Parts: sequence; C-alpha cells; structure tokens
Amino acid sequence: MQNKKSHPSALNEKAGIAPPETTSLTSIGTIQHFRKIQPSATALVEGILAGNITALSRAITLVESTNNNHLSKANEVINACLPHSGKSMRIGITGVPGVGKSTFIEAFGKFLTNQGKKVAVLAVDPSSTISHGSILGDKTRMEELVKDKNAYIRPSASGETLGGVARKTRETITLCEACGFDTIIIETVGVGQSETAVHSMVDFFLLLKIAGAGDELQGIKRGIMEMADAIVINKADGDNIKKAQFAKMEFNRALHLFPAKKSGWIPKTSTCSAITQEGIPVVWEIIQKFLALTKENQSFFEKRKEQNQYWMLETINEQLKINFYNQHEIQNLLEPTKKAVQNNEISPFAAAQKLLNLYQNSKNNQQNMD
Amino acid sequence: MQNKKSHPSALNEKAGIAPPETTSLTSIGTIQHFRKIQPSATALVEGILAGNITALSRAITLVESTNNNHLSKANEVINACLPHSGKSMRIGITGVPGVGKSTFIEAFGKFLTNQGKKVAVLAVDPSSTISHGSILGDKTRMEELVKDKNAYIRPSASGETLGGVARKTRETITLCEACGFDTIIIETVGVGQSETAVHSMVDFFLLLKIAGAGDELQGIKRGIMEMADAIVINKADGDNIKKAQFAKMEFNRALHLFPAKKSGWIPKTSTCSAITQEGIPVVWEIIQKFLALTKENQSFFEKRKEQNQYWMLETINEQLKINFYNQHEIQNLLEPTKKAVQNNEISPFAAAQKLLNLYQNSKNNQQNMD
Repeated sequence: MQNKKSHPSALNEKAGIAPPETTSLTSIGTIQHFRKIQPSATALVEGILAGNITALSRAITLVESTNNNHLSKANEVINACLPHSGKSMRIGITGVPGVGKSTFIEAFGKFLTNQGKKVAVLAVDPSSTISHGSILGDKTRMEELVKDKNAYIRPSASGETLGGVARKTRETITLCEACGFDTIIIETVGVGQSETAVHSMVDFFLLLKIAGAGDELQGIKRGIMEMADAIVINKADGDNIKKAQFAKMEFNRALHLFPAKKSGWIPKTSTCSAITQEGIPVVWEIIQKFLALTKENQSFFEKRKEQNQYWMLETINEQLKINFYNQHEIQNLLEPTKKAVQNNEISPFAAAQKLLNLYQNSKNNQQNMD
Repeated sequence: MQNKKSHPSALNEKAGIAPPETTSLTSIGTIQHFRKIQPSATALVEGILAGNITALSRAITLVESTNNNHLSKANEVINACLPHSGKSMRIGITGVPGVGKSTFIEAFGKFLTNQGKKVAVLAVDPSSTISHGSILGDKTRMEELVKDKNAYIRPSASGETLGGVARKTRETITLCEACGFDTIIIETVGVGQSETAVHSMVDFFLLLKIAGAGDELQGIKRGIMEMADAIVINKADGDNIKKAQFAKMEFNRALHLFPAKKSGWIPKTSTCSAITQEGIPVVWEIIQKFLALTKENQSFFEKRKEQNQYWMLETINEQLKINFYNQHEIQNLLEPTKKAVQNNEISPFAAAQKLLNLYQNSKNNQQNMD
C-alpha cells in the first residue's frame, strides 16, 4: 500500500481530462474498487477451484511477483491448490522462430476445445525480459484461441534467470490445473537451456519443424531431438507437402540413432498444416497413444514424481549458487580470479578453494556483526 | 607420522619370518629408509622438473591424498609446476567395456614412444572405488607399455565423487606435463558422467567402437557421439574388416547430423587393429591435422582457457552442494522431504525454500556456538 502513491492508477493519471461521454462513471468506479481489493489466499483458492479466470490470473500474478511479501501468500495458494492439481496432460512445444509455433498452437488448441477440452497455453522464455515478450506476448497471433472461453493464454513470466522463470511457470501449471484446465500447453523457443526446463515439467515433448532445403538434419540443437516424443513437420501444405514428407522420413531415420526411452515410447514423426488443419488430429492421436502406453506401464506417474524431485533439487542448487555469486566480495574477485585461472597463474582448484574460503569467512564476519 | 604405529610397514609385518636368503638386508634398509623420507614440496618440484618418475609418483600420491594436511603441500607443488605445464597434447579415449581400450592404448602408446614421444596414461573411473580399479588397475594388460621408460601409466584415482576423481586427474596432468610428458592419454569407461569430465580436460576426444551386428548406431550413450573428435573402429582385422568398414561409413553419416564444432573441426572416422597395428598411424595423423587446424585458428588455446575456467566454476558449484547436502540436519530431512514432494504434499519450490532456510539457520546457530 505504501507504493500506492508513487505508482498511481492509470485511471487516475488522466485526471483533468474529461472521459468520453460514453464511459460509464459507475463502471470506472467498479473497476477501481475491484483493483484495490486484495483478495485473501482463501478467496483466491476458492475462486480458482470454482473455475474463476480472474482469480486464476490474480494468483498467477502473485506467483510472478518479485515482492517478497507476496511470496508467503503465493505459497499458501499453491499448497492449497496442490491436492487439486496433476490431472491434466502437460504438453511442451518447441521449435525455432519461423516454424509456426503460434499458428500451430492456435490450430491445435482450437481442435482441443472443440473436443470439449479446457486448454491453458503458457510459455517459458527467459529472454522476454530483454525482448519484452518475444513469444506469446502478442496475443493477437492467436486471435481465435484468445476469444475461446475454454482457452486461457498467459505470456511468459519475466525474470532474470531461467530458474526463476521456470519456477513461476511450473507453479502456474498447478494453478491452471486446480482451475479445471485439463490440457496445458507450454511453448518455448529453441534457444538456450529453456527446452531442458520445459522438458522437465511436461509429460509429452513435441518438436516442431519445417521442411528445409534438404538440410533437415543440419543445425539441430544439441540434445533437443533426443528429448522429443514427437517431431511434427509444420507447413505441410501446397508445394511444401512433398518436402515435408521427405523431411518426416529423414527425421524418422535419425530418431532411431538415439537410445530407447525409459518409458518404452518410440518417438513418432508426422506432418501437419496449421492452415489447412491437415494432420492436426493425428498429433492428438499420437499423444493419446503415448498416454495409453505410459499410464499402463506406470512410467507416466514415475516421471512426474521424478520431475517433482528434480525441481526441488534444482531450486536448492540454483539458490546455493545465487547466494555465492551475489556475495559482495565474490562479485569483486570473481573476474580477476577467472583471468588468473585462464592464464595458468593459479590452478582452477586452488582458485576455487580461495574463493570458497573467502565466502565462508565473510559470511562469518557478517554473522558476528549482526 | 602419528599414524605410523597403527599402520606398520608391510615389511615389518613379517617380523619373525626369516626373509629368503636371496633378499639383501641392505636393500630392505634402503627401501625402508626411503619410504620414511617425506620430501619437501621444493624437493618434489625439483624432482618433477628434472623428469624424475619417483618424484612424480609421490607428488601424484600427495594430490590424491584425502588427508587435509597434504592439501596445502599438494597445492604448493601444483602451483610451482603450473608455469611448466600446458605443453602437451591431451587426448581423451572412451569406449564401452569390450571395445579393446587397453590394447588400443598399448598399441597407440608404443607407436608414440617409438616416435620419440613421452606418453603418460591416466584414467578417470569414479566407479573404481567400488570395483577396486576396473580400468588400468591391472597394469599387466599393457605389458609392453608398462616396461617402456618413455611411458608412465597411473591407474584412476579413487574417490567417492566424480568431481573429486576428476580434480585429481586434472592436477595429475599438470604434474605429468611439468615432468616432461608431451602426450597425455586419459582413458575413461563409457558409463555415467565421466566422459563429460574427461572431455572437459582434453584437447582431442576419441571414441573407440567395434563393428557390431548391424546395430552400430544403436545404444550410443546420450551426447557421447557429439563430443567425439574422431570415432575409431577397433578390431578391424581378419573377418571383421568388412564389417568395420561398413561401421565407419555409418558413423560418418551419423556424425553429419550433429551441429558443427566451434573449432571448425569436422570429426573423422577410421578403422584400426590394435593387434595388426593397421590404422594406428592414421589415428595419429588425424590428431596432427586437428592440432594444425585448431592452433592456426586459435581455438586450441581458447578451449584450454575455457576449460580452466570451467573447472574453477565446477569446483565451486560442487563444493557448495557438498557443504549443503552433508549438513547434519539436511541429511536427516532430505529423504522425507523428497517423499513429500514426490507425493504432491508440498510444492518442490516450497520444499526447497524450507530446506534452504533450515540450512541457513543451523549454520547461524553453529556460528553462535563457536
């Protein structure tokens, strides 16, 4: 509340400028009033469980907040939602820019809502802090889906670290599931480590590709193909159909080079067109087959347990590093020490030991001063 | 020295049993006397720089010691050797058991010493703590090389963590280089994460394979093929030659599926026989070409700098984790918390936060008690 004055409401900012005559002053009052209410954790949970999208959005905003006061309230909401979560199918979708992720998700999402599904579309894109939302930022790219009342689209959380963005997305999944969404699609761009993060929070991982000029297999990012449960070649329409089918064959052969998956699932390839809708139902059939197999042999549930544990350990390991590298003296000495190590002036291990001792000692001093 | 009495010398243990008449008592005295001397760091460094193998072996033992008193002396030796290190070619060799790593290294090592090279053979095998040295443990498997005065073979350091074993091996490289070895071969078995560790300490990474029954490309461990600078198909002799050549072709095709290396090097494939020696010189030619290219475009030196930095950061990150997970209260609570997280009773992030707070608080308490 203290910040209220320095961040005035956008509505108040225009004081002195008469609102257009068509604007209802009562409506403004209602909106202003509603914005001021800080619903309790209990109220948010009740709203979410009742399928209220406004409550869901507010809870997600709470999860995404960097304000420390919001953290405990966010945790309260999430822990209350946890018993009602986990019942959805979580699908990760990746592909380099230009492959048509947005149009594919729009077509695929509409197909699912037509089948009576409730679809939430989230994104993991740590780069969006800089680019201000390069994916899903522009909701108009999914103009059909965004109007669908059985679909909920939420842009990527912003954040400086992938770990932070991933945490927020993962908690958002819990909230969406508790809110009744049975299909969660998580989009990511094919850069950096974000695929690994998304792969670790979904049941099924889909790699979207387009047929290139014969170089289908070139330049595939390290490890991405190995993570895929399916490779779908998009834009298989018009003159492109033949090329897409050839690419499908090539990928199919390449997929056999990788070790078998623990789940027993053999990755599939298919072609589709987000424009003609051709091949979209096939993608869903593939996912159904995957579900049937992995639920039958229990690997579906095992993987989710492992993922939960993975995220706990990842969070711990990341936080330990953040504490270390953000420490004042380490920040001052890290770069010169790196240089010395690069130039063989000190062994990497002696240098590490030196920095670790420094960290320990300055923490002790900090302690004694407290 | 304090431990001397509880660990009597093996020579003394047989007191009461008359030594065979052929044993010279003077020799026993010399050996006993020599074993008791603890050479100073300066003496060890002098010995190493003079090419003295005994000094080298003793310094490596110091590096491998888990006795904390030895640590500072080991660091002193390493830091003094650093300016004299770095001039060798470091070659990593991996392959699953049965592929003939020992016979290949023996043949390749003999080829190199015949060319006037001084060859050190080390190993990274964290599992050897359990198996008591599954690789290089039995030096008789390289019976020619072990007798060669221009070769030095040292089994894998033992240790509970890969990080620990890797650190010791990496420091051993420094010592061997300062001792005048110009070619360092580091062997590892194709299991676990040890290839990644070895890949991060060598200039050239060689994957050894044998031709299988048509399934050359099956079951290749995640990421190993992507790390290889060359794939050598061993046992290309007798009836096997055709199969080996087919395998070579298959691997060559598969290698093209991977993204180009930063160094500009295109990985090569070749066949060889450790028994007939056929193809052994070709392997060395490939390495020479690699050296010429990467030294010309500087990537050789860039990579070494990156590796130095990598090992510093790795050591820090690993030690931060060790400090955390070895903490008494964390050890007690980790397993029950993991269970709760797996079963969705608490979110992974809330659980991580709980453990991190606990760690911080109990360290503070520890501090106050000190």
